[in-house]
Amino acid sequence: MSLVHDPPSRLDPPGPLPPASGIEIPKARRYRIKRKVLGPPLHTDQLEHERLGKPPALAVFASAALSSTAYASEEILRAMVPVIGLLAFTAFLVPITLSLVTVLVILIFSYRQTIKAYHSAGGAYIVTKDNLGLLPAQVAGVALLTDYILTVAVSVSAGMAALYSAAPALYPYRVPIALAFIAIIAVGNLRGVKESGRVFAVPTYAFIVSMFAMVIMGIYHGVTGGFTHAPVPADPIPVGVGAASLLLVLKGFASGGAAMTGVEAISNGVPAFKRPEATNARQTLMIMGACLGTMFLGISILAAKYQVIPSEKATVISQVAKHAFGSSPAGHVAFIFVQAATMLILVLAANTSFADFPRLASFHADDAFMPKQLTKRGHRLVFSNGIVALAVAAGVLVVIFGADVTHLIPLYAIGVFTSFTLSQAGMSVRHIKLREPGWRLGLFINGLGAITTAVVTVVIGAEKFVGGAWFIILLVPIMVALLVRLNRQYESEAVELEHDVEAAVTDPVLPRHAVLVLVSDLDRPVARAIQYARTMHADETRAVHIAVDPAHGQQLADKWVNLGMTRVPLDIVECPDRRIDRSVLDVVADELADHRTEVTVLVPRREYQHFWHRLLHDRTSDQLATALARLPHANVTFVPYHFGSVTISDEEREAFHASKQPHH
Amino acid sequence: MSLVHDPPSRLDPPGPLPPASGIEIPKARRYRIKRKVLGPPLHTDQLEHERLGKPPALAVFASAALSSTAYASEEILRAMVPVIGLLAFTAFLVPITLSLVTVLVILIFSYRQTIKAYHSAGGAYIVTKDNLGLLPAQVAGVALLTDYILTVAVSVSAGMAALYSAAPALYPYRVPIALAFIAIIAVGNLRGVKESGRVFAVPTYAFIVSMFAMVIMGIYHGVTGGFTHAPVPADPIPVGVGAASLLLVLKGFASGGAAMTGVEAISNGVPAFKRPEATNARQTLMIMGACLGTMFLGISILAAKYQVIPSEKATVISQVAKHAFGSSPAGHVAFIFVQAATMLILVLAANTSFADFPRLASFHADDAFMPKQLTKRGHRLVFSNGIVALAVAAGVLVVIFGADVTHLIPLYAIGVFTSFTLSQAGMSVRHIKLREPGWRLGLFINGLGAITTAVVTVVIGAEKFVGGAWFIILLVPIMVALLVRLNRQYESEAVELEHDVEAAVTDPVLPRHAVLVLVSDLDRPVARAIQYARTMHADETRAVHIAVDPAHGQQLADKWVNLGMTRVPLDIVECPDRRIDRSVLDVVADELADHRTEVTVLVPRREYQHFWHRLLHDRTSDQLATALARLPHANVTFVPYHFGSVTISDEEREAFHASKQPHH
Repeated sequence: MSLVHDPPSRLDPPGPLPPASGIEIPKARRYRIKRKVLGPPLHTDQLEHERLGKPPALAVFASAALSSTAYASEEILRAMVPVIGLLAFTAFLVPITLSLVTVLVILIFSYRQTIKAYHSAGGAYIVTKDNLGLLPAQVAGVALLTDYILTVAVSVSAGMAALYSAAPALYPYRVPIALAFIAIIAVGNLRGVKESGRVFAVPTYAFIVSMFAMVIMGIYHGVTGGFTHAPVPADPIPVGVGAASLLLVLKGFASGGAAMTGVEAISNGVPAFKRPEATNARQTLMIMGACLGTMFLGISILAAKYQVIPSEKATVISQVAKHAFGSSPAGHVAFIFVQAATMLILVLAANTSFADFPRLASFHADDAFMPKQLTKRGHRLVFSNGIVALAVAAGVLVVIFGADVTHLIPLYAIGVFTSFTLSQAGMSVRHIKLREPGWRLGLFINGLGAITTAVVTVVIGAEKFVGGAWFIILLVPIMVALLVRLNRQYESEAVELEHDVEAAVTDPVLPRHAVLVLVSDLDRPVARAIQYARTMHADETRAVHIAVDPAHGQQLADKWVNLGMTRVPLDIVECPDRRIDRSVLDVVADELADHRTEVTVLVPRREYQHFWHRLLHDRTSDQLATALARLPHANVTFVPYHFGSVTISDEEREAFHASKQPHH
Repeated sequence: MSLVHDPPSRLDPPGPLPPASGIEIPKARRYRIKRKVLGPPLHTDQLEHERLGKPPALAVFASAALSSTAYASEEILRAMVPVIGLLAFTAFLVPITLSLVTVLVILIFSYRQTIKAYHSAGGAYIVTKDNLGLLPAQVAGVALLTDYILTVAVSVSAGMAALYSAAPALYPYRVPIALAFIAIIAVGNLRGVKESGRVFAVPTYAFIVSMFAMVIMGIYHGVTGGFTHAPVPADPIPVGVGAASLLLVLKGFASGGAAMTGVEAISNGVPAFKRPEATNARQTLMIMGACLGTMFLGISILAAKYQVIPSEKATVISQVAKHAFGSSPAGHVAFIFVQAATMLILVLAANTSFADFPRLASFHADDAFMPKQLTKRGHRLVFSNGIVALAVAAGVLVVIFGADVTHLIPLYAIGVFTSFTLSQAGMSVRHIKLREPGWRLGLFINGLGAITTAVVTVVIGAEKFVGGAWFIILLVPIMVALLVRLNRQYESEAVELEHDVEAAVTDPVLPRHAVLVLVSDLDRPVARAIQYARTMHADETRAVHIAVDPAHGQQLADKWVNLGMTRVPLDIVECPDRRIDRSVLDVVADELADHRTEVTVLVPRREYQHFWHRLLHDRTSDQLATALARLPHANVTFVPYHFGSVTISDEEREAFHASKQPHH
């Protein structure tokens, strides 16, 4: 280490100062792009106005629940027809559907209670946390979050199946198209919930209208004897007709349980309703329940009457539509309309999850059980990180399962029924504790709900275990354990951060302040850093050069002397192993060794005018800052130098260029 | 903006200082992993010792040139046999090979001249730059760099073809296996060139020995009448025997030109030889030329005698080997040995490029025509960034072309002949200028070399244009234009950096210094930052809180007053649009507006003990630093706070935990 002290000082003559005037803040290009994609930013006090009226709320929150009618009846049949054949239609489809609709009715009335009790946000997480504690709430929340991810993956994949059934040429592109749909929905949600209500209203209502038209037409044909004119099913009915055991009925029931996914969406999203939130939410919930029950039952009745066999070539609902609307040209148009509406609502059902997942994740994060970033409201007041996380997770599922619904379905519905159970149990505990007016009826409703959903959870878990439910049954406790660990980490950080702050703010100032300027050459950025260093009037101010190339180090030392840099002597530190960060750490650690010194390390940083200019240089300065951060009392300051701040004449430029040409 | 001024000061009572003792520098885990993968770091003064003796040098630098004999004869036949059938064997294969060997001899002698003239590093780039100027040197360099990338892609892909021909089960995995080979070679090179010489010597010498054995066995059989016992070729000979035009001969010649790729490797790598570098390099060059010429000619003679038809099922060289070694068990073992050695040398030929590409790229970068990062010697003194760049580029080619040699071959060889031409032309100019002893002979040799390679370049460009050479002919000028643009950028930066530094170092210190501490809460990191702020004795020191949540801002202000923070008043800045960076920029711009103030923005930064702890928090502080860097005289200081620096009692932890549970 050689110290360069130079005798004459030339640093201090005061020069003229630039004229005093306002500073212009340069524009950030990235922000302009963001504004274009997402729209103008919303202020925090605009939060309340981004609310949904009942019709758009139904579109946003009900599409997942309603769209499940597109496959629920089919799932029941797929579980039973291969074993008992025609008996599935004549004896079991409608009774199983009726029992599921009974569960639905119990659920709807249970959730009415919840919305009544929790005006602000009464999802399973809040209700469970409030009445059963934080740990059960994590279970309810995680179970529900996994189901939201699956809703996106299943719905978009099912939408793709509908799409490529109609246009087989698109089959090879189903995964990229599915990913594109997820991306479009995600961007729509990043723009804010009101716009998404508007965007998604049309397909949802088209689906509701077309389903009701189909059921009414089918029943009309049935009453007028139209059933006899229905074409014969394309696929032969299987012959193996076995005994219908209780297990088989339970299997059909479990498979149909997917119809209930999404029912909790409204109670979770109460704060997104226009005022009075609770009343509007409850009315919307009833409308949704009525639609869902009627459509599900109607489709099952028609499927049973027409004896529609599940097939790889045509979905049950498309076959029902074909029967119901007949083969006239008008009937064909209606059939195409049903198919298109089904495809759209399946894809858009994913949107329900995009409304709910980020909100639920923010509840977890508020309680420090998930990364804090999930609580941050973005540009348009939505929980941007949650939206992005959901899109990524669902995208990964779509890629892994190749947008194949068949493989995804067994993972589905168990999560939502777990959260139903915990949520209803929580409501029951609440009634017992608070004993508000009407608590006995409430306890009856929620207790019935809790018992019913608990039974359904066990049935689904047992019946689908081998097919894939095992994965969710394994995943949820692992995730909960991870979240608890994460919570411990946050807690231990928070305890330390707040530990005896009163004493910390009275910590004495260290008696010595050393300023080190890291220099690679003597150029304008270094001159700037030295100018700044001198404003600090530290006890020691020196420049440090880490010499990877000793010859260059000597040149620099000579230059330093020649330019008469008195106040700031230059240290040359040899660095034969080229680990600059290690050498700087050593220098700073030496300064800190007396435990009485505050060290400020000045890193001259060049600010380039264009993004690609920065790519032409390595990030040594950033790496140094990261390395130095490992030492206490080592404070790293970036001193910016802005390219373009001096005017260079053409002659100067030419002279420099000529000096770089090879000599002959 | 409300300013909190609190009357009583409680900041100043001096407390006890910690004992003075050395500072321990924490270990960086990433570095330990790097050490394990790459070996211990090498010091810069060890550079010289990392040199190659002649035998390992031949292995490292000659494998690309030698391995091309595995397909050069076949390429000639593929161009001619489909058109003229048997005539290709009886009339053209050996003469075309002889003409190519003549070109080779001219090249070898030309490069001897180059090594004589350029002891340190005499690649096409240096020679062209020195004699023809910087711009032609860019053309030569870029042409050569593209060819190096292609060498890696072609060699590894051809190696894969040899592999999956032997083991068809591996066919579907050829791309990942090829990428794995590229990665292995890259890591080997990152470890340093000496080790790589050791690793690659065995396959190279095995290939040389097996080729010579094959040629000798074949000629021995020929002399003893063994040719008549050779089995009949598996594929039928095509019947269309047309007229052998000049164009067809040129096409065969152009296709065989691939054999010359890699000849320049030694002259480019002179500094990697043991001393005396030039003598060793020239001797190695002669040995390589002799091996290459003999093997190429021998294989062509045998292929002509055996009349081996190019087939999809078996390479020409494998058929020649089968004929030469016969069908005895010993012959079969020899055949398998040849196949294995061929596969290995093809894969390892890629290594030649890994020795040369990074060095050539560093020459470009030294002249500021490529990113400076390419000049940086890594952990083991090799140009790590160049190695990684080559591996990535070749990997991309392998993925795009699906490791298919057939599609890569037409892009190949044109680059290397372009650089041959420029390099030999440069040598000719040099002889004319310097007129050193023996310059006339030198001029004759290099002039002949320049003319010959120019003709070959034109022939290859014309004959392969449609097949893919157009891409390279287009790419090279585009790349050169980009590099020139990049050079302009570097130059304009360098001019500005060095512009009137003498004046810059005498810039007066700004008369006012304001220190702003950014605070999100009043916790230990903030207390630490305030302690540091007070060491600076600035003209103004205050804390700034950007209030996204006004309620939290008010709480913080109250806490500030309660803890009696006199010296550092707190500003609360409302931020309804949640753009914290914009608000901070406004505050700092206000301070800077008088053009007389140096602003230091203190950002308390939490240093976590584990990498994943950091993931639980957003990077607001880093984003702020980046945003502030856009303002002149806004210096950002990170004040580190290290978690784990205070001891927390279990009681404290428990009390905190209990306070976070939901209330019933």
